[in-house]
Amino acid sequence: MPALVNRRSLTIEWGQCDPAGIVFYPQYLIMFDTSTSLLFARTGYTPAEMREHFGIIGMPLVEQGAKFLAPCRFDDEIVLESEVSDWGRTSFTVRHRVLKGSDLAVDAFEKRVWAAADPERPGRIKAAPIPREVMACLSDPSGATRCVS
Amino acid sequence: MPALVNRRSLTIEWGQCDPAGIVFYPQYLIMFDTSTSLLFARTGYTPAEMREHFGIIGMPLVEQGAKFLAPCRFDDEIVLESEVSDWGRTSFTVRHRVLKGSDLAVDAFEKRVWAAADPERPGRIKAAPIPREVMACLSDPSGATRCVS
Amino acid sequence: MPALVNRRSLTIEWGQCDPAGIVFYPQYLIMFDTSTSLLFARTGYTPAEMREHFGIIGMPLVEQGAKFLAPCRFDDEIVLESEVSDWGRTSFTVRHRVLKGSDLAVDAFEKRVWAAADPERPGRIKAAPIPREVMACLSDPSGATRCVS
Amino acid sequence: MPALVNRRSLTIEWGQCDPAGIVFYPQYLIMFDTSTSLLFARTGYTPAEMREHFGIIGMPLVEQGAKFLAPCRFDDEIVLESEVSDWGRTSFTVRHRVLKGSDLAVDAFEKRVWAAADPERPGRIKAAPIPREVMACLSDPSGATRCVS
Repeated sequence: MPALVNRRSLTIEWGQCDPAGIVFYPQYLIMFDTSTSLLFARTGYTPAEMREHFGIIGMPLVEQGAKFLAPCRFDDEIVLESEVSDWGRTSFTVRHRVLKGSDLAVDAFEKRVWAAADPERPGRIKAAPIPREVMACLSDPSGATRCVS
Repeated sequence: MPALVNRRSLTIEWGQCDPAGIVFYPQYLIMFDTSTSLLFARTGYTPAEMREHFGIIGMPLVEQGAKFLAPCRFDDEIVLESEVSDWGRTSFTVRHRVLKGSDLAVDAFEKRVWAAADPERPGRIKAAPIPREVMACLSDPSGATRCVS
Repeated sequence: MPALVNRRSLTIEWGQCDPAGIVFYPQYLIMFDTSTSLLFARTGYTPAEMREHFGIIGMPLVEQGAKFLAPCRFDDEIVLESEVSDWGRTSFTVRHRVLKGSDLAVDAFEKRVWAAADPERPGRIKAAPIPREVMACLSDPSGATRCVS
Repeated sequence: MPALVNRRSLTIEWGQCDPAGIVFYPQYLIMFDTSTSLLFARTGYTPAEMREHFGIIGMPLVEQGAKFLAPCRFDDEIVLESEVSDWGRTSFTVRHRVLKGSDLAVDAFEKRVWAAADPERPGRIKAAPIPREVMACLSDPSGATRCVS
């Protein structure tokens, strides 16, 4: 399935590493959370605009997983690649890969829900259908499709 | 000036330490933030009750500082002592000490404001006078004075 | 399969929560990492003693996953339950549950390797057989079996 | 006193913010730690090269302080400016400013020691004289002076 891949380069910071000198693994999940934001920013909407335009409260995580294949260390340069690997009607899966040179260091996924406020239960959320324009944009590997005209 | 001292014991966690094997210093500030919450909980109010009862939105930090005198390492047992060392009309200073055995490892302070919503500027905050009962409670070293009867 | 369950109670801290007012999910993984340490401390060995006594360099994570079933908020009291749910020869799986009252809020696992220094490749690690005494201790639900006599 | 100012732009991430929607203040200190690394990287040495070339074990923090003048929120773009504002013989002070547009949001400092291993007490550190070439490089506002030829 074609997908827009968002790539970003990072240098591992001192405070992301543990006494074994390698990245403390929850730090990867912090990076992935931001990578998902950056991937969805490729639609042309900021997070605030997305909430307002589509009437959602956010994209809460319902499940995640990661395999740690090679350690990264302080001052290592890594590349994070993120893409939606699966679209459901109201949920989707983002796949994140951490590359150190040509090595795959971490292979991970996040399953998130497209969530709106529940009109019938104040303070609660409800899964909502993902807009076609968001799916179209993030399914175009070229990055040329934009939600915002 | 007499003050109620809140003490708590913690064991340094793996993820709080850096590749040098010592606590990554912003981690101390995370501990201090919670120590301030726990000190104010000694009034008998939860954070939510305090916001509701006194009409404040919180106690935002305006200044902080810390001296690092001795390093703490993974699995070290430490004691955190926290007290209000100075009361202004609308602001106060909390002093935090990290003790490792009989050694003072970190000596720090936080200056915070007693902040309410500004009725004249929506979305902005305004310093408000600190209630006498809060000052009385946190100035009693015995801990016997409670705001909530 | 019988297992020793380590339970600990925590109160959600301000700094663990995000602008949606709920726990920022990587924070759970930080808690789980410490819960695994505390579970293995039930053997009677400190982390340093375990490294020295068994000649390991640690128990690096190779895979983890989590399902987020209900959000936790600032000042919520939670219980973390952790146990080894599966023993391999050189690896094991720790299951972590976050309970909020009687609700299961997070259901997670960590797969870790019992890792020693590789004698043939300096600076590299090698999976090693998990000692029977460690398995015996963490498989006794009563907590009465100790590695250290 | 002339100084090389290192500037970097960051966008505030979701996980850096607290339930009040503003940056959780210890997160600024995490940013400052990396900013100091990046400032010293302007010498042309990586952290590893600096340790090896100058025989130091690092630049541990002995004191820090910060004034919080305006809050930063999720998705805000900020600029961090960092420079050595004071050189002692064996210690130095780095000043960090967080700018949000033309507003100074945070004004902070770190006092650090140029630290070598203590030859007489294994496992302990000792303040060492800061090399002239490092001072020369970080005192040149143009950034043209490099330690490494």
